[in-house]
Amino acid sequence: MQQSLNQPKLLVFDVNETLLDLQKLQQAIQNSFQDQHAFKIWFSTLLQYAMVESITSQHHSFAEIGKATLRMTAEKLGKHISDDSIASTISLITQLPPHPDVKNALAKFESNNFRIVALTNGSTDTVKKQMDYAQISEYFERLFSVEEVQSYKPQAKAYEYVLSELNIKAKDAMLIAAHPWDLAGGKAVGMQTAFIERPTQVYYPLLQAANYMVQDLQELFEVLNKR
Amino acid sequence: MQQSLNQPKLLVFDVNETLLDLQKLQQAIQNSFQDQHAFKIWFSTLLQYAMVESITSQHHSFAEIGKATLRMTAEKLGKHISDDSIASTISLITQLPPHPDVKNALAKFESNNFRIVALTNGSTDTVKKQMDYAQISEYFERLFSVEEVQSYKPQAKAYEYVLSELNIKAKDAMLIAAHPWDLAGGKAVGMQTAFIERPTQVYYPLLQAANYMVQDLQELFEVLNKR
Repeated sequence: MQQSLNQPKLLVFDVNETLLDLQKLQQAIQNSFQDQHAFKIWFSTLLQYAMVESITSQHHSFAEIGKATLRMTAEKLGKHISDDSIASTISLITQLPPHPDVKNALAKFESNNFRIVALTNGSTDTVKKQMDYAQISEYFERLFSVEEVQSYKPQAKAYEYVLSELNIKAKDAMLIAAHPWDLAGGKAVGMQTAFIERPTQVYYPLLQAANYMVQDLQELFEVLNKR
Repeated sequence: MQQSLNQPKLLVFDVNETLLDLQKLQQAIQNSFQDQHAFKIWFSTLLQYAMVESITSQHHSFAEIGKATLRMTAEKLGKHISDDSIASTISLITQLPPHPDVKNALAKFESNNFRIVALTNGSTDTVKKQMDYAQISEYFERLFSVEEVQSYKPQAKAYEYVLSELNIKAKDAMLIAAHPWDLAGGKAVGMQTAFIERPTQVYYPLLQAANYMVQDLQELFEVLNKR
């Protein structure tokens, strides 16, 4: 199967958890709710309602959905959280370090002539701030936000938008993510896929395996470089 | 706003949590993972992947997705759970009691000539077993499963299928659920909506309010009966 894949011309990176380490945000949410699962519950509710909005043709910004679902999480856990505290917690999303393998691997991909872009459910403004803070902006030809198509991943529109803007065929592009639900969307439009096994990320057993299942971006570089 | 609503001819009930009390299942999952949030994390992951499948035009049965996401939850929480234990846990879904208000309220709706159906993400076979176990089958004109359209709520298809089978206009039907994501789907196709505020269920603040927000079905009956 892998033999028949083209060498990808374009690498499309998911941002949160795939490139950036969310631990700082996770810790803040766990501390403010005094609950070790509060982050998991919130992030899962956030993704759920982003999908609900896409399915029912609504659209609020990812930050607004983030705040609304943080409020829901607090209520579910029987905690109180002030609006100020919600805002300051959510703002941590723009102050996250990259995972340790990221900078080095991006540099290698770039010097081997891969085209590199990012595609995130976050806003255009947020992803710019994130990449600047993480000091990895220079590696990206372009930062795409689904904001421009008002439809969240894993809707086909989100991926098709990147492919169409760059005039690249789906089979020549690879989606790289730590989230199986994101890869399900990429696969559905015909992209190649790579699952990055970040700690706490588990593959969805009913989804056809990703083309590559790797520990980190360093390993992905080695595998692609050998092809 | 409410004055302009027709008296609903058809009441479409969601099943899990809305009619049936999931505590037995919740307890079993919490015990087997020794974790008080394991059920929340699982149920949220289950809904998330049911939506992912609909969005990406895949389809596995709700029970299969339930088992797969229970396995993912175990792995995320660093626990082991055997296939036998997964199967026996999931099978508890057919042995749930109704919430205390349910039987009485259904009887009142029926004797006041409301047409009553159920619409569930669970399979046809499961919902039949559930209603028999809960001893409330007799109140339902028909039990609808999204299995028949291979697309999970909140996709429009799921609701439109019920309306089209019964030849009822959306505005003459009311969707009754304890889950805001379900009501978002009903609203999107033009149905009236009622949110049942079951314990632990929190409304999604970015969704336009349901036509009725009530504590239980008894209160819903009283409100509708006054119109």
